[in-house]
Amino acid sequence: MNLFYLEHPPAEGAGTAFTLTGREAGHAARVLRVARGETLHATDGEGLLYRGKVSRVTEGEVRAELLSRERQPLPRPDLVLAIGMIKKRDRLEFAVEKSVELGVRRVVVFAADRSEKSSIRVDRLESTALAAMKQSLRCWLPKIATASGVDELLDRFAGMPAVAADEQADGGRWPQIGKELLAIVGPEGGLSDRERAEMIRRGVTSVSLGPGRLRSETAAIAIAARFSHRQQ
Amino acid sequence: MNLFYLEHPPAEGAGTAFTLTGREAGHAARVLRVARGETLHATDGEGLLYRGKVSRVTEGEVRAELLSRERQPLPRPDLVLAIGMIKKRDRLEFAVEKSVELGVRRVVVFAADRSEKSSIRVDRLESTALAAMKQSLRCWLPKIATASGVDELLDRFAGMPAVAADEQADGGRWPQIGKELLAIVGPEGGLSDRERAEMIRRGVTSVSLGPGRLRSETAAIAIAARFSHRQQ
Repeated sequence: MNLFYLEHPPAEGAGTAFTLTGREAGHAARVLRVARGETLHATDGEGLLYRGKVSRVTEGEVRAELLSRERQPLPRPDLVLAIGMIKKRDRLEFAVEKSVELGVRRVVVFAADRSEKSSIRVDRLESTALAAMKQSLRCWLPKIATASGVDELLDRFAGMPAVAADEQADGGRWPQIGKELLAIVGPEGGLSDRERAEMIRRGVTSVSLGPGRLRSETAAIAIAARFSHRQQ
Repeated sequence: MNLFYLEHPPAEGAGTAFTLTGREAGHAARVLRVARGETLHATDGEGLLYRGKVSRVTEGEVRAELLSRERQPLPRPDLVLAIGMIKKRDRLEFAVEKSVELGVRRVVVFAADRSEKSSIRVDRLESTALAAMKQSLRCWLPKIATASGVDELLDRFAGMPAVAADEQADGGRWPQIGKELLAIVGPEGGLSDRERAEMIRRGVTSVSLGPGRLRSETAAIAIAARFSHRQQ
């Protein structure tokens, strides 16, 4: 099964058809050679799964007559994964791809005190997230954002229960997880003492992910996997 | 902290020094510029962590006087990760790197019915596993092996409790996990009906990893993460 992304979904409750446009239409028509009469699956990235029967295929548009429209439940917890900016782009992209496959809802890349980079290409990570959403047949498109540091990150998610993966955490007691969670992973060099102190001051719980020393992207994926298992 | 690999560890109980050789010595001497008097950490990959004080540095050898020798506990469960051969080498290497960081003890790459490849470079995966072991400060070097198919795999690990990640698993009840476990992940196209039947016949439990459709390497990493968390 292939899942497509609907850039212009029909208004909720309205319409008896939906139409793939742009790249999605091109991919469906040219690469996958979708043909009239076939069943097509698409999502608006906001939780809706559309199923339709292909009625028209052109280079720029693939139209399908609506068979059903279902709402996919929002993953619980609604997980915001915050990753310190890491130097190697492929590792960051991999973290985004894997954590989206595993059900993360938002990714925030923050410039940590020890980050060796201070900017990233958000559009690239958005493409990665879109592809991973479709690949994993999920209907919630994760948002990608950046933050200038831990302070801005914690301001933005003030009030949300938060954990930080920390090698130095003793024992690794996780708090009770409710419907949402901010999970913070440092950059290659780990979190600074200043960042640790700021997090403690704001009530972030330090947690351990196990006995080994994990790379940033591994820690990010391990947290996403922890909650993916819980979604069963 | 850097952890080095001791190709020629001193005999257990014997010796008051240990010596890095080959690539490890080159890396320590030329890249990391290890100097006399510094503390050096090394492992034999069989559970022993050596700590020593550097006494001599040459191009081909770095010798350290033994300060302590400790045994690192074997991760529980002793996890054998079996992955169907996947086409993209970087994805397989990533699965090995991440699962070793997360504490997997053995990796077996098997030619599944739907694998599009039938051979891999074991030496490359061994290098990946060695680097990941050192990176994660673990002292057990995972073994990498191949199997010609599910049948050979199940023969080799007959008697070991086994699970297979399967999208089609209903509910995803995991069996009670003891001290060892074989966890099987299919290739890109999933497991074949024949492989599923063979696994059922041999008592392998199908388990779900959550609601999304996961790529092979993501499923492998998610299983490793599941048990890494339990090691706390």
